[in-house]
Amino acid sequence: MQDKTGKKLLWWGTAKCFDHPRFVHGAGTSPSADVFAFAAAQIKNAIDATVKLGGQGYVFWGSREGYETLLYTNMGLELDNMARLMHLAVDYARCIGYTGDFYVEPKPKEQTKHQYDFDSATVIGFLNKYDLAKDFKLNIEANHATLAQHTFQHELRVARTNGMFGSIDANQGDPLLGWDTDQFPTNVYDTALCMYEVLKAGGFTNGGLNFNAKARRGSFQLDDIFLSYIAGMDAFALDLRIADKMIQDGRIDQFVADRYASWNTGIGADIISGKATMADSEKYALEKGEVTASLSSGRQEMLESIMNDIMFSL
Amino acid sequence: MQDKTGKKLLWWGTAKCFDHPRFVHGAGTSPSADVFAFAAAQIKNAIDATVKLGGQGYVFWGSREGYETLLYTNMGLELDNMARLMHLAVDYARCIGYTGDFYVEPKPKEQTKHQYDFDSATVIGFLNKYDLAKDFKLNIEANHATLAQHTFQHELRVARTNGMFGSIDANQGDPLLGWDTDQFPTNVYDTALCMYEVLKAGGFTNGGLNFNAKARRGSFQLDDIFLSYIAGMDAFALDLRIADKMIQDGRIDQFVADRYASWNTGIGADIISGKATMADSEKYALEKGEVTASLSSGRQEMLESIMNDIMFSL
Amino acid sequence: MQDKTGKKLLWWGTAKCFDHPRFVHGAGTSPSADVFAFAAAQIKNAIDATVKLGGQGYVFWGSREGYETLLYTNMGLELDNMARLMHLAVDYARCIGYTGDFYVEPKPKEQTKHQYDFDSATVIGFLNKYDLAKDFKLNIEANHATLAQHTFQHELRVARTNGMFGSIDANQGDPLLGWDTDQFPTNVYDTALCMYEVLKAGGFTNGGLNFNAKARRGSFQLDDIFLSYIAGMDAFALDLRIADKMIQDGRIDQFVADRYASWNTGIGADIISGKATMADSEKYALEKGEVTASLSSGRQEMLESIMNDIMFSL
Amino acid sequence: MQDKTGKKLLWWGTAKCFDHPRFVHGAGTSPSADVFAFAAAQIKNAIDATVKLGGQGYVFWGSREGYETLLYTNMGLELDNMARLMHLAVDYARCIGYTGDFYVEPKPKEQTKHQYDFDSATVIGFLNKYDLAKDFKLNIEANHATLAQHTFQHELRVARTNGMFGSIDANQGDPLLGWDTDQFPTNVYDTALCMYEVLKAGGFTNGGLNFNAKARRGSFQLDDIFLSYIAGMDAFALDLRIADKMIQDGRIDQFVADRYASWNTGIGADIISGKATMADSEKYALEKGEVTASLSSGRQEMLESIMNDIMFSL
Repeated sequence: MQDKTGKKLLWWGTAKCFDHPRFVHGAGTSPSADVFAFAAAQIKNAIDATVKLGGQGYVFWGSREGYETLLYTNMGLELDNMARLMHLAVDYARCIGYTGDFYVEPKPKEQTKHQYDFDSATVIGFLNKYDLAKDFKLNIEANHATLAQHTFQHELRVARTNGMFGSIDANQGDPLLGWDTDQFPTNVYDTALCMYEVLKAGGFTNGGLNFNAKARRGSFQLDDIFLSYIAGMDAFALDLRIADKMIQDGRIDQFVADRYASWNTGIGADIISGKATMADSEKYALEKGEVTASLSSGRQEMLESIMNDIMFSL
Repeated sequence: MQDKTGKKLLWWGTAKCFDHPRFVHGAGTSPSADVFAFAAAQIKNAIDATVKLGGQGYVFWGSREGYETLLYTNMGLELDNMARLMHLAVDYARCIGYTGDFYVEPKPKEQTKHQYDFDSATVIGFLNKYDLAKDFKLNIEANHATLAQHTFQHELRVARTNGMFGSIDANQGDPLLGWDTDQFPTNVYDTALCMYEVLKAGGFTNGGLNFNAKARRGSFQLDDIFLSYIAGMDAFALDLRIADKMIQDGRIDQFVADRYASWNTGIGADIISGKATMADSEKYALEKGEVTASLSSGRQEMLESIMNDIMFSL
Repeated sequence: MQDKTGKKLLWWGTAKCFDHPRFVHGAGTSPSADVFAFAAAQIKNAIDATVKLGGQGYVFWGSREGYETLLYTNMGLELDNMARLMHLAVDYARCIGYTGDFYVEPKPKEQTKHQYDFDSATVIGFLNKYDLAKDFKLNIEANHATLAQHTFQHELRVARTNGMFGSIDANQGDPLLGWDTDQFPTNVYDTALCMYEVLKAGGFTNGGLNFNAKARRGSFQLDDIFLSYIAGMDAFALDLRIADKMIQDGRIDQFVADRYASWNTGIGADIISGKATMADSEKYALEKGEVTASLSSGRQEMLESIMNDIMFSL
Repeated sequence: MQDKTGKKLLWWGTAKCFDHPRFVHGAGTSPSADVFAFAAAQIKNAIDATVKLGGQGYVFWGSREGYETLLYTNMGLELDNMARLMHLAVDYARCIGYTGDFYVEPKPKEQTKHQYDFDSATVIGFLNKYDLAKDFKLNIEANHATLAQHTFQHELRVARTNGMFGSIDANQGDPLLGWDTDQFPTNVYDTALCMYEVLKAGGFTNGGLNFNAKARRGSFQLDDIFLSYIAGMDAFALDLRIADKMIQDGRIDQFVADRYASWNTGIGADIISGKATMADSEKYALEKGEVTASLSSGRQEMLESIMNDIMFSL
């Protein structure tokens, strides 16, 4: 999937286990074992195709893995079954030689009222609980983040902090609307902070930026699709430069380093190493006395001002 | 804490590590090691008092364990440190003979923009990751559930499903307001479904119902506090009867049992036991063919109607 | 539309000026005058049919009367044009002998990002500004109310207070979801307070209760549609009894009457009659001195408790 | 209020009729006539001071003009009384020679559950209904806009379209939080679109930009207040240049002009002038036939891209 330009396609497989009426109550979380088996068969074939074509990612999009009402839901069984389906998929894929990543894409709601893959933290907790973390990473979508009341950067940071950052569905939602609008990303703040997290994560490995976006209904002419991709790509190209400059500039990273400096020595280092007990901490605190005067300001407004300064002086 | 009436007080300890200016950037998640040590000292003393007075619960209320902006936040260090503080507390308490539960109360925001204890799923993931799950349970608050865009019942169900249900902060929020109003609970739907989860969880062990509620600012007369507690207690008393009747009635539980019956035999049982592989599932699905016609309706409206029937015919 | 049982059908006309691609940018608010003319023609024919069949209501559903982005929107022209279309419709209909009501149904968003008919207050302001209030009333939908961050009762109260209450689209939304779910109404609190407003408004005249609801996607069997209507009708039947009992009971109405009693005499009456000037008020206040101690509690919790008492003791 | 630099202070008066316990149930909308009279006295004195000091604005901040529950609320009386208070104030002020503007600042919630001054459209409807529009204008706050689920630009546009734009409370909220954070404005998109509306409105007359903002709790050092004002002022200075360039550039305005060109001639002009009847529109539409093919795209993505191009090439 790489030609002479050196550019590579982002190559994934997935199975559409959600819009057919058989998946009305879910696929891996369906109350019907027959539907689960059907989904497993579908995924097996999608994995076969992915491996055959050299894909380096396989994504679980759980668009109906959730519930509409708890009155009829056996949540424990449904979650266990979702994990069973993922284990079956991993076992099968590894067995036929697949070496890429598996992804889960967090989403809090839509199509169901509550989606089990609510957000990054929830999905990571699920993957750890069911011993799936070593094979899975997260595919983060901007609009799903805001639907879960998180910033895009937050979801990326949670994934990065847990070593689970994988890939990105690039789009943007409308912060005042409660559904998934999947707009082309043009807000440079959001995308700059996205690229900052990507750079801090060491860049992409198997993943990449996938425009999971559609032109608005009112943008219905043929060239709108070009103009929309250009709008999104220009935003991300600008953002990569901004993110790089944020790091080169160094003011933000230095501020953060200084802010946590007390953990590098003394009681901070002893707490981190596990040497300090509760009693040691108490003894230290009693000797130290009131610490309020030594606190430093968070300087959020100054940091936002630095961010503007970097953005508008490229 | 039990007198001749047989009624017991819900007896907890906690340390107020959030409103003093020293905790402006958090306690266990403060960027300052000195503040962490101060918090540890405070918690040590609160645990001493809890043990001395025979308390059976110790709660971590993380009202400033979160961040205002990611621009200045080292999320990984902060989460590790929060876990370190909890481990120190557990080790110390067990060492001096405390046998009760530790609790975390999930809350998505307020006082900070993002609280690390966002919701039940997030907290359970955290406790599992840092090997704290055997000592901790959840203390679920109704208003925190809705701030996280979950129903109260959802948060209780997640806790119950993971064996982490501990105790309840009984109140209600306003579904149209975006902050924590901590109103006295009078919505009988919400509290009935709460008590249903409590009964299904086998009732309370160390925990109970704690009215974390305040009369509205406009209810400023002395007897308002009596009237408010009466309003809340009457709602929960009615709800316990409704929840009990839901279970005695049996229609809802039977519906759920029937809905998942396919997991008890055949391919369902083989998937659960781990006997069926991906290939077995595919073989079964191919033989079975299209399964849509065999699906049963979720009947949400009928179930809501049954719920009304039970509620209004006590 | 009335047979020997005495039951009457709720008989309305409307024109579907929103889902065809020609209405992508609106109908009355389209930037294209041709589209406006097309919509006018469609509405003229719908009015003809309504009159011919004896309808007593004609509804403007403005599902695409709004904007996606202000970058391309001439808001002033669009609002003026929407009013022009309504005037054309009223003039035509009155001319051919239509004597029923016209309705606007408030809705804050969906299908567009911002709908001009945002909520009751906005629509009433619009109708007054463009001198349309004498011909129009409001058709209030429960789910649209909550999407606009209002309670269903609030929207009905605003309409009633302004003498603009007309008809009701009976359904319910999910308070935790940000889109229009149009579920069958089963929450007895919401519907009881709805019927309370209807009774206080003197009941319906030309309007009525229209189930603008659909069974959930998971309720796909034929009898679900019966069960859903039964669920909704049972809820409203119960609610009519509850609302009637609220009024017969008298406690709530008496509380409200007492609460505002100071407006019936003295300075209150003088302010209402316009006799008291700013200087009179100042003189009165200076003589009276501090008034805080004479204030009475709002007793919200007691009132909610009375509501539960009435609901659960029918 | 103008010194030799030529800079003028933004000079307003207002009365704090909300935080004292006497205003717990409102001031102009209090159920107590005594409280209303007290508020009137307070406002009379504030107007005296405003006139004496040469202020050119008097603002009604209705922080408790609303309700907590409709169960105890006489909405009609409360709204009438609020209008009575405003009329008393206007009559008194004009009588003593005040020639400036009166302002209302829309706010949807906080401190009460529902504020009567919900948003621009609601306030304008209220001012029109009670014949107050000629004396009042709006003071728009960014964070109040987003709490009402509107963009800042939307609220300004509604005010401008109705000739009611007066002044601005400059701040920003957090789009993911449901309360009024009053942060210093640093998001250049929001403030650029704000200044675009101000320029289109012909600039300020009596009003101006008022930083109704506070440094975050974590920004507690003395210089944070300087850094915060600098952050806000730099953002607005940059935005004024961007807004000016948006207009100089001309692409956006030309796009809008072209989009509505059909209203300048033919059937469009006839509809606007009132010459075309419903029957004329029908005749035109029938002759014209299907119009979908002649529609032009809204090109939202291209416009957002132009906006980025203008912003990042100053």
